[in-house]
Amino acid sequence: MFEKILKNLKSNPPLVHNITNYVTVNDCANVILAAGASPLMADDINEVEDIVSISNVLYINVGTLNARTVEAMVKAGKKANELDLPVILDPVGVGASKLRNESVEKLINEIDFSVIKGNMSEIKALYTNAKNTGGVDVQEDDLINDENIEESINFIKKVSGKFNCTIAATGVIDIVTDSERVSLIRNGNDMMSKITGTGCMAGSLVATYCGSNKNEIFDATVMAITVMGLSGEKAYRKIVEKSEGTGSFRTYLIDAVSLMDFKALKEGAKIESR
Amino acid sequence: MFEKILKNLKSNPPLVHNITNYVTVNDCANVILAAGASPLMADDINEVEDIVSISNVLYINVGTLNARTVEAMVKAGKKANELDLPVILDPVGVGASKLRNESVEKLINEIDFSVIKGNMSEIKALYTNAKNTGGVDVQEDDLINDENIEESINFIKKVSGKFNCTIAATGVIDIVTDSERVSLIRNGNDMMSKITGTGCMAGSLVATYCGSNKNEIFDATVMAITVMGLSGEKAYRKIVEKSEGTGSFRTYLIDAVSLMDFKALKEGAKIESR
Amino acid sequence: MFEKILKNLKSNPPLVHNITNYVTVNDCANVILAAGASPLMADDINEVEDIVSISNVLYINVGTLNARTVEAMVKAGKKANELDLPVILDPVGVGASKLRNESVEKLINEIDFSVIKGNMSEIKALYTNAKNTGGVDVQEDDLINDENIEESINFIKKVSGKFNCTIAATGVIDIVTDSERVSLIRNGNDMMSKITGTGCMAGSLVATYCGSNKNEIFDATVMAITVMGLSGEKAYRKIVEKSEGTGSFRTYLIDAVSLMDFKALKEGAKIESR
Repeated sequence: MFEKILKNLKSNPPLVHNITNYVTVNDCANVILAAGASPLMADDINEVEDIVSISNVLYINVGTLNARTVEAMVKAGKKANELDLPVILDPVGVGASKLRNESVEKLINEIDFSVIKGNMSEIKALYTNAKNTGGVDVQEDDLINDENIEESINFIKKVSGKFNCTIAATGVIDIVTDSERVSLIRNGNDMMSKITGTGCMAGSLVATYCGSNKNEIFDATVMAITVMGLSGEKAYRKIVEKSEGTGSFRTYLIDAVSLMDFKALKEGAKIESR
Repeated sequence: MFEKILKNLKSNPPLVHNITNYVTVNDCANVILAAGASPLMADDINEVEDIVSISNVLYINVGTLNARTVEAMVKAGKKANELDLPVILDPVGVGASKLRNESVEKLINEIDFSVIKGNMSEIKALYTNAKNTGGVDVQEDDLINDENIEESINFIKKVSGKFNCTIAATGVIDIVTDSERVSLIRNGNDMMSKITGTGCMAGSLVATYCGSNKNEIFDATVMAITVMGLSGEKAYRKIVEKSEGTGSFRTYLIDAVSLMDFKALKEGAKIESR
Repeated sequence: MFEKILKNLKSNPPLVHNITNYVTVNDCANVILAAGASPLMADDINEVEDIVSISNVLYINVGTLNARTVEAMVKAGKKANELDLPVILDPVGVGASKLRNESVEKLINEIDFSVIKGNMSEIKALYTNAKNTGGVDVQEDDLINDENIEESINFIKKVSGKFNCTIAATGVIDIVTDSERVSLIRNGNDMMSKITGTGCMAGSLVATYCGSNKNEIFDATVMAITVMGLSGEKAYRKIVEKSEGTGSFRTYLIDAVSLMDFKALKEGAKIESR
């Protein structure tokens, strides 16, 4: 799987159109470049259709949404659907405000998404309209672990069915499913929640791999989440070795994505198919 | 003092709502995480009340203010006051433009702030409506030093009285006062003015510590400023040792915040009570 | 040349007003500080004139333009022209959308620019209204190399004549011309295209050096591009030595700018006058 996905990325590196938040936008751009693709950020409603038209994939992240950008997201998403490009949704902090809930609902109603990626609190809020009082971080009750894994898988499959797209629910164990296939990914590291942007970077990577692999959305998503997790492990080993902190972790995380190759991926990936 | 403040932070890590500028917002998010809390950035007027309602503290920074965000700041600040949450103001560059002066005046008139943090030029502009031609950096005439320290303390106490809140005036010597208590902090390093974001990160840390210590606003502010200064010293030692520059300094500064503990703080703090 | 430009920068470090994109704005601020100047970011139409009035130079970058900021750019640019300050344009991604083309055309019609800096695809789109399907990255056909260098020089001179300003066309070989003088700069490194922000940082550096050298715009531009290229080389050597990736490259690039001195510049510069 990895070999084909990587080969497609290398032979046709995608132009990734991002409509995302201003907190982690620089990290998203850098991680897309680190993976070998090209990022493009544009959110004015009067240019998003033009930008989508030269892009290979659209990544929508509602981290710091506002009225202006939500309209642009809808317009961009519809154009991407029209052109049959993959569209990825990162419903950051959904459940934390009425505006966020209504905006995400609107996006889901108007756009066909290929992948929705979020932490378990966000996915739950999306499905059940539950209140998400943890803000952009996952709440403790919602952590995916070995005890609740069966239940979690079943739930995520239902979500996938409801929204008719691949769902990537990230956590200590990541779950990716397209309703039929299920992959559990046990890569990653606690330190990833101690910097901002790991979630958004994971979303950008999903967009990157999907951008060159539009007929292999499930595999491309599994691979992106795995690359992110493995990079986190590598960055963590390095800061421990050098007694460094979260600032260095962030730098090494992007380093690791840029240095990731097929061999490292094959050796380090902890993917379980269910 | 440190022990209690840190203990409260660890037992109840706050959700810190930031309405801040797009230049250093990523640094603010990362420093809040490095200190052990959770950042949340949201500035749309239609969601700030919801976000304040799930947060423990509100940080308002006018670095790249515009008409849209100023309204959101007012609304968020009023809600935070209603819920009795600490609200921190960082009047970045006040004095540099009419819009900035009027916006900050509006914020101060409509919101009860717990802490206002700025460099001496900003604090002066705030108090006297003086023009601040240094932009976002302190002007040379306004540097706090051993020669003008008595005068500076008296001035800052007056400012604190006028605005009825704790004032943190940052510089080579930092002055924190709530009109009655005064602490001088002699930590920090010149290199901190050679990267963007140290002022904003200090403000975010003030918000973080206040968020878990709402009954100890003065102490929490002193501690935040001390943590920032000490981290700057540590980062500086590291770049000197490794012959590195300002890019590395920024990384190590966040590293140092994430690695700061009670022992390092107790040993390194240079706080003088007046 | 370097000595005078550097001396002017040190004796009168400029306040650099940036109206730029939210992707790389932090990098721009940090690189301006690394070069020894002060950045100021402000884009609200109601304050840009005040901010220009206390600044020494204006840098306009359309990376994530929108209707609101384009109006502010025009207003700021006119004020800067009135005050006889250098104004630098970075037409990021021009050619990629109608909005971008129209906005850049408007800027060029209403503002007298001292320098326009872009990659070859952007410069071509600017001159010929050609479509730029590479987004913000240069397209392969447009790479400047030894084969097409004469042709490229002639083209850039024509562009310089048309817009009546210094043009800096960046690439493997950078070309700077004011229609009469031409400098080719062969510093730099491929890795610079693997992180976001190197183009924007180069633009910010052009603004920085021009800000203290308004009578030496051509030389200041050549120097800024050289400093950027040399810093890229230095950063690249360091990541190779330490087996690090693009995250570290970004950090070392800013390090290198902050550590650059006259000696390193004189020894490393590969400038050819034509």
